[in-house]
Amino acid sequence: MARVVVNVMPKAEILDPQGQAVQRALGRIGVDGVSDVRQGKRFVIDAQRELSAAELEELASKLLANTVIEDYEIIVEGQQ
Amino acid sequence: MARVVVNVMPKAEILDPQGQAVQRALGRIGVDGVSDVRQGKRFVIDAQRELSAAELEELASKLLANTVIEDYEIIVEGQQ
Repeated sequence: MARVVVNVMPKAEILDPQGQAVQRALGRIGVDGVSDVRQGKRFVIDAQRELSAAELEELASKLLANTVIEDYEIIVEGQQ
Repeated sequence: MARVVVNVMPKAEILDPQGQAVQRALGRIGVDGVSDVRQGKRFVIDAQRELSAAELEELASKLLANTVIEDYEIIVEGQQ
């Protein structure tokens, strides 16, 4: 079984209201000093075969991320 | 600047309809052999000081994750 993780994050120049909401909430639980919070998505994909680099790019760029507003990184964790 | 990443994923025994939707969509872009997709959240936190382990646990368990249905992992990436 091959495992791949794809992290999808809002691009740096894109406003991230979810991250901002988390940042504001930190004050309410008494954690200060946080200058930025960004919230994105994490996909853990298990496959019965090794997915090719081309397949992973297609999968990440067409299905998992909206590349207009999001960046992605593909991490092949290998055989489980 | 200290950076911390918190990954939040649905627990293994919890149904993950978002992940299942991605898995079904894979067929439509011609990627076969995927046996499981889980979708979670990824938080990237930048702080002006080093957050203590206790603060990070509080932050992750009370604010970022719903620990009834989600697991979290805290990754301290250190100084940027």
